Amino acid sequence: MNSRPVLVAGVWRPSLHSSQSFQALNPATGDLLPDVYPVSTLEDVNDACSAAAQTVADLRELPDVTERIAAFLEDYATRIEGAADALVEMAAAETAYPVTPRLRTVELPRTTGQLRQGAAAARGRSWCHATIDTAAKIRSMYAPIAGPVVVFGPNNFPFAFNSVAGGDFVAAIAAGNPVIAKANTSHPGTSRLLAELAFDAVRASGLPVAMVQQLYRTAADVGFALVSHPKVGATGFTGSKHAGLQLKAAADRAGKPIYLEMSSVNPLFVLPGALQERLPAIAKEVFDSCALGSGQFCTRPGLTVVIREPSGQAFVDEACRLFREGPSGTLLGTSGRSAIANGLDELKANGAEVLTGGEPLPGPRVGFANTLLKVSGAAFLEHPLALQTEAFGTVNTIVLCADAGEMAAVASNLEGNLTGSIYSDSSGTDDAMCGELSGILRSKVGRLLNDKMPTGVAVSAAMNHGGPYPATGHPGFTAVGIPASLLRFAALHSYDNVRPQRLPPELQDRNPTGSMWRFIDGRWSTEDVI
Amino acid sequence: MNSRPVLVAGVWRPSLHSSQSFQALNPATGDLLPDVYPVSTLEDVNDACSAAAQTVADLRELPDVTERIAAFLEDYATRIEGAADALVEMAAAETAYPVTPRLRTVELPRTTGQLRQGAAAARGRSWCHATIDTAAKIRSMYAPIAGPVVVFGPNNFPFAFNSVAGGDFVAAIAAGNPVIAKANTSHPGTSRLLAELAFDAVRASGLPVAMVQQLYRTAADVGFALVSHPKVGATGFTGSKHAGLQLKAAADRAGKPIYLEMSSVNPLFVLPGALQERLPAIAKEVFDSCALGSGQFCTRPGLTVVIREPSGQAFVDEACRLFREGPSGTLLGTSGRSAIANGLDELKANGAEVLTGGEPLPGPRVGFANTLLKVSGAAFLEHPLALQTEAFGTVNTIVLCADAGEMAAVASNLEGNLTGSIYSDSSGTDDAMCGELSGILRSKVGRLLNDKMPTGVAVSAAMNHGGPYPATGHPGFTAVGIPASLLRFAALHSYDNVRPQRLPPELQDRNPTGSMWRFIDGRWSTEDVI
Repeated sequence: MNSRPVLVAGVWRPSLHSSQSFQALNPATGDLLPDVYPVSTLEDVNDACSAAAQTVADLRELPDVTERIAAFLEDYATRIEGAADALVEMAAAETAYPVTPRLRTVELPRTTGQLRQGAAAARGRSWCHATIDTAAKIRSMYAPIAGPVVVFGPNNFPFAFNSVAGGDFVAAIAAGNPVIAKANTSHPGTSRLLAELAFDAVRASGLPVAMVQQLYRTAADVGFALVSHPKVGATGFTGSKHAGLQLKAAADRAGKPIYLEMSSVNPLFVLPGALQERLPAIAKEVFDSCALGSGQFCTRPGLTVVIREPSGQAFVDEACRLFREGPSGTLLGTSGRSAIANGLDELKANGAEVLTGGEPLPGPRVGFANTLLKVSGAAFLEHPLALQTEAFGTVNTIVLCADAGEMAAVASNLEGNLTGSIYSDSSGTDDAMCGELSGILRSKVGRLLNDKMPTGVAVSAAMNHGGPYPATGHPGFTAVGIPASLLRFAALHSYDNVRPQRLPPELQDRNPTGSMWRFIDGRWSTEDVI
Repeated sequence: MNSRPVLVAGVWRPSLHSSQSFQALNPATGDLLPDVYPVSTLEDVNDACSAAAQTVADLRELPDVTERIAAFLEDYATRIEGAADALVEMAAAETAYPVTPRLRTVELPRTTGQLRQGAAAARGRSWCHATIDTAAKIRSMYAPIAGPVVVFGPNNFPFAFNSVAGGDFVAAIAAGNPVIAKANTSHPGTSRLLAELAFDAVRASGLPVAMVQQLYRTAADVGFALVSHPKVGATGFTGSKHAGLQLKAAADRAGKPIYLEMSSVNPLFVLPGALQERLPAIAKEVFDSCALGSGQFCTRPGLTVVIREPSGQAFVDEACRLFREGPSGTLLGTSGRSAIANGLDELKANGAEVLTGGEPLPGPRVGFANTLLKVSGAAFLEHPLALQTEAFGTVNTIVLCADAGEMAAVASNLEGNLTGSIYSDSSGTDDAMCGELSGILRSKVGRLLNDKMPTGVAVSAAMNHGGPYPATGHPGFTAVGIPASLLRFAALHSYDNVRPQRLPPELQDRNPTGSMWRFIDGRWSTEDVI
């Protein structure tokens, strides 16, 4: 059986010297899908990096780069919409996600929306924070990072975080960089269809043909070579902590920026007044959020912290009923199923008790029973790290605290997380406790929520889909939200006494769009420099 | 002889379990200075980190933190001015820099100016990029990084980059973080006087007493423990590539951000028309820039690239005269003198020819003869990495290229640098060459200059004192320039559906200062949210 070609240097061509291949699984049936994809070797990586480096040089000479990039992103979004049937069908086969609403009416529109937001950011140019000091004759801006951006997409969003269509892809391209996409191995077919559309859009745009390249899989050491390649600018990675930390070590040694979104238990703190006021509604919110996408969201809440008396135990009972009675979704693959089992073993070995679930589903469908655990606050505080082990599925551990002080201690022992949520009552009896917890949580999470589950990640300028280590590799950057996500793939360029006609358009006296925001002599303005 | 105390947890106290000590050298005489300073052990590091972590918690509860920080920075600047005589005397003894103009009229005012700019940034708050999305009910801002910032200052700016008074210190404090200063071992006395003033100002401000702490020296492994300490937020380091890369490895492994400013040869490209037009003036600029601070500037030009015919050789002759006839300054220490000798050995071994200088100065004063080398473009291209070896003194290597193509090839083979400068003529004959070189250099340097030496580093909002690896560890950040330098020591905090009264003042509907810039629904504004 021939492997599918990779997209390197503007050509769909066979993977070079590849002796290994793989197929994706249909998690709904447990069967392998027919298409065969190659495991790329160092030859593919070197060729892709060389072509991308040439692309960086070519982009420098190309007129209207910004407009071409914007047009490319918009055209690509339109092509995705035109191919929605095939994309949704393939993604459904590779992920077992429901076609509707998940794939067709939620994730696909989110993906095309991100591409169009990226186009608007590229065209609007305000993202580059043009800064002008007229007295000192110094001007600066963020610019492309001078090498391709490597994007490793996760398994859980075949469209919206796809390495060749998702958030990191958009951010890298909108900031002016070519992308080398390393597809997630659980959905190579979806990635192939997207890359074909992207490549068509690249050719229509007049951008260099290696603006977008795609590999499907590499051995670990070839992946390390990719993120540390001398010609690479930076890497965006979303996936497991295990893989992320290994790639981080390789990139760090080479002095290459790498942005990682790795793991998070997304703690919920449900305060006594809130339980008093709306226990059933909150329990339902917790279950629904945990079950979204079969629990395979980076922002799925994995830990719910309550106070035992008077209503914590009643909350446990209600949540237990919901987890037990609710449908169990299909997982993305067998490795995820094993990982949940391993995670549960770790949680149980450290004192958590399984209240419902705890076992894989029988039959060919890849699944795991909805699982609720509980542990006392005191027991949590004995093994706080082990009890934050992520189990990536419809799994939640309720921590039953003796009092507010123990709840605060649990918060103080949390690792870095993407999110933290506090539910409090409307009459103010929870406010003091909420204030203390907010202070503790604030430094441990990228996004702090009130009365809301963290699984919705709006593509907003004020979003932070990031957080302190080990949730990510750096607390100052977000993977979602435009324009901020573009800054990950940018270098700061200062121009000192450079002659006016030699400045990039963004830094010349005349505002190049008439509307881009620039920081001129201490004031944000859309005016020309006068 | 008793060692001087360290400043830990709000007390000047003896270093714990320290069995080693050191003294600074007076480079002008070669004699050791009388004061003895301790080499700190892990006990001091752990104590300082614990006190700083408590400070982070205390700052959360303190009213008017922003105003206290601003007042602290201003008061500290005033105290420095009041103690200028003692500071300048001590710094002159420890560095052999001239009292005037260098220390008293240039570096000291720059330092107090930075402190006051930091105060204005803290008070003005626009640095935190408050971003408000009213429709999505999500708001975000940059906030302190949730742990102390460790600052390692370099040897070459005893005031302006001092770990307890310089640019990194100001940026870390203005962003709301406590600082653990690791003094440079070549000027412990200056650092001690500054830390005493800083501590007095901390106490006057009502900030927690461990807002500023100071250690003088550690063994290498204790330094690694410091930058990777679980309680540390981030590190700012300015110094040698050797030490910087070791600290980077330790911090990276622990997932702790570290910002490094390590090395740079700051290439100059002097084009034929410019030489035709103003050869003597440019040669003098080159020598003066190379000789500034005895050549011990991070931005000192170490490489000058010219075309041999018609005027490159004449430029070499004139530069050689200036280097030979110009005074040779005093170096900061004997290790710097050895490092220059080692650097020259490397350059010579790879084909560079010494035209003048090349030897240490005789006598007790620590010095090295002004040294000019030359190498052909062809020879440079055979060993481009070795010929970029930094020799941190009044040393410059002229690369004589056969033609414009060879000059472009030299540019293409440069490593990441802080700066790159192009000198071209006023009539336009150099413009094509300048355009090509600018394109190549732009991705290799943090700051691109025209017709100007890079040794002036203005404290401007548009400055970039940074650049691609290995000049620094990340091309997106600057160590000089307010407010951008503060972003290194900040975390991104998003608030999603958080109740209005619980938001930090910067994100509430009402603009907290009446003048801070906020990005509200896609527009920069100083207005309230309506």
